[in-house]
Amino acid sequence: MIEEILASTEFQMSLLLFVALAGYLIAYRINQSAVVGIILAGIIVGPSFLGLVTYTDFVASLAHLGAVVLLFTIGLEFHFKEIAQIKYVVIGLFGIVVPWLGGFWLASLFSFDFNSSVFIGTATTATSIAITAKVLEEMGKLKTKAARAIMGAAIIDDVLALMALSISEQLVSDSLQTMTIMFNGAKAIGFLVLVVFPLRLLLRRFMVWFDKTRTVRAFPEAMFIAAIMIAFLYGMGAEAVGLSAIVGSFLAGVSFSSVWLERGHIFHEGSEHLRIIFASVFFVSLGVLLDINAIDTRLLVFVAALSGIAGITKVIGCGLPALVSGFSLRDSTIIGVGMMPRGEVAMIVALVGLSNGWIGQDIYAALILMSLLTTIIPPILLRSWPYLKGSFV
Amino acid sequence: MIEEILASTEFQMSLLLFVALAGYLIAYRINQSAVVGIILAGIIVGPSFLGLVTYTDFVASLAHLGAVVLLFTIGLEFHFKEIAQIKYVVIGLFGIVVPWLGGFWLASLFSFDFNSSVFIGTATTATSIAITAKVLEEMGKLKTKAARAIMGAAIIDDVLALMALSISEQLVSDSLQTMTIMFNGAKAIGFLVLVVFPLRLLLRRFMVWFDKTRTVRAFPEAMFIAAIMIAFLYGMGAEAVGLSAIVGSFLAGVSFSSVWLERGHIFHEGSEHLRIIFASVFFVSLGVLLDINAIDTRLLVFVAALSGIAGITKVIGCGLPALVSGFSLRDSTIIGVGMMPRGEVAMIVALVGLSNGWIGQDIYAALILMSLLTTIIPPILLRSWPYLKGSFV
Repeated sequence: MIEEILASTEFQMSLLLFVALAGYLIAYRINQSAVVGIILAGIIVGPSFLGLVTYTDFVASLAHLGAVVLLFTIGLEFHFKEIAQIKYVVIGLFGIVVPWLGGFWLASLFSFDFNSSVFIGTATTATSIAITAKVLEEMGKLKTKAARAIMGAAIIDDVLALMALSISEQLVSDSLQTMTIMFNGAKAIGFLVLVVFPLRLLLRRFMVWFDKTRTVRAFPEAMFIAAIMIAFLYGMGAEAVGLSAIVGSFLAGVSFSSVWLERGHIFHEGSEHLRIIFASVFFVSLGVLLDINAIDTRLLVFVAALSGIAGITKVIGCGLPALVSGFSLRDSTIIGVGMMPRGEVAMIVALVGLSNGWIGQDIYAALILMSLLTTIIPPILLRSWPYLKGSFV
Repeated sequence: MIEEILASTEFQMSLLLFVALAGYLIAYRINQSAVVGIILAGIIVGPSFLGLVTYTDFVASLAHLGAVVLLFTIGLEFHFKEIAQIKYVVIGLFGIVVPWLGGFWLASLFSFDFNSSVFIGTATTATSIAITAKVLEEMGKLKTKAARAIMGAAIIDDVLALMALSISEQLVSDSLQTMTIMFNGAKAIGFLVLVVFPLRLLLRRFMVWFDKTRTVRAFPEAMFIAAIMIAFLYGMGAEAVGLSAIVGSFLAGVSFSSVWLERGHIFHEGSEHLRIIFASVFFVSLGVLLDINAIDTRLLVFVAALSGIAGITKVIGCGLPALVSGFSLRDSTIIGVGMMPRGEVAMIVALVGLSNGWIGQDIYAALILMSLLTTIIPPILLRSWPYLKGSFV
């Protein structure tokens, strides 16, 4: 009877939202972003301390849903021309190469085997924009030049990181095939080109037409359903070509951003409200995923060193090209710090390695922890380091 | 690869929302409620015809979530004094007894065994207010006297139907224990009393206090998260005492309805938006649950007869007491028709019977179909029967 109730959708939802609320209280007390507060609350209720919440399929689905909606609403704030620039491609490229070398070097230093070192390097390349974007938005800085550079470079970065993953898989499974890698890369680039040009125009025309139909006049909420449907459809498309689903939903948001629609406010406000609930669940789940009990002392030293390397290599790898392409020293540092979070992308890399037997449980735990540390620290830096906090424009 | 994509959260969500959109188009074409359109679209894509969508755990969870949010937003429109009246108790009571007798009699007429007849009778007693409430709201009639009577009586009805289920379980398992039945009844009534009086006052004080805290001033969205958390918590409470979760979330909504809060608009609008997406999934799932291929001719005749009996007994069982307690003939008919939908409550009864081996697959299919027919027909009657449509006040 008790077990039945604890397993019910109702209990799980109310518990997750309760944890999110506690996260808001923590965030307010320690004067941090709500994101940091919610992740910390997630760690406390997760297997590390209280063991109240576990990462079930249900929690995973809701978290997934939250990440898609989150990036869709963030996409709505962007315009294509602002993020599609060659200098962001350069920032993204160096933001992959430098961290990979740093991660691989550190892993060899700790004398992990070749396969583990390759996966540690690859996990270090990833960038999760969800966290940074949310923090920038909370700070009211989403419209700044630095924020645009972060979003633009992070998308390029995601494409390249997933290519790096497929190269690593070939490397460790002794079947390096240039053709396969090129094919996967071409698929991803093809998707981006398709989405940016013909699909975007088609979608905008469809929405303008749909907005005027009698069905939408009778049921304005159909507009909102259509928008969310397209967000998930783009997410699916991105996954189908090997990108992360949130890249797709972000691009769906960007496609809608500057269309004027009579009933546009309903999906702007509606997605905002969906995201309040489900992005909270997503951030709780990031905390719940961590079990600090699985970590011993040697691994803890490695995690600390890896997180440091992961942070520094992004600041150098992204900040330096940014500085060269004309950003100020302060903005370049912000871009570097903003690219630090590894989030779920590194976790996917770790999961691929573990499930194929290429890395062990210890490396897996270390990568998850590094991913969380690099996810928690940048928001704190952005909000609390006086040099960065004051004045990016 | 293809299977992976089809099983992804993204694909499932976009497909469900696409079906909901198609439902809106159907609803507009046939000039019916969006609810009817979406259920019809669900039947078409479900196993009965196209077989595109199946009732997976994921769909079930989302549908569950949708029903809870739906009843919460509907609850927000009601005030306690309006629905807690002795005449609604009388309407609810007769709305249980008359349909039970009708269902049991018809099942005996078709010479089903005793156990099956008991379960058919019990499934006939249930009332699902979700559909009727949504239709009344779409028609702008939620504030009428008849609508209040339907909501009040349906809650009483739900309590009594679940007591009837526990009596039936005792009857067919040869362990009729008056004590257990009384205990279950007392639990349900205790919950209602607790929720209506002390918890409601406590909750209102909490919300007024929370509204003024610095945390909510810094993060207004915390107000919305708190409201939705409480909706699910009440849903869980209702399930824990053996009621349906949606009764709990409805009562949570009613508890909030007349509190003035500075940031109250955020959870009113927010829940509205959540419900647009998830209630659509709920209605799609009702259509998907039906597989018409499982029905043979004899059973089809039985289903038609049972649905007729189920409809007539509610009109008599609820309409007559309504007429006696002072409603007009037209309003009494509306109350009777509004109480017809069996929805998920009858499905739960059918599921309990099937999983305990007390009824067979055929009776199960018949009950699901009856439940769907009685769910689809009332909205059509309410919207299209000129006698009812015109003028309830």
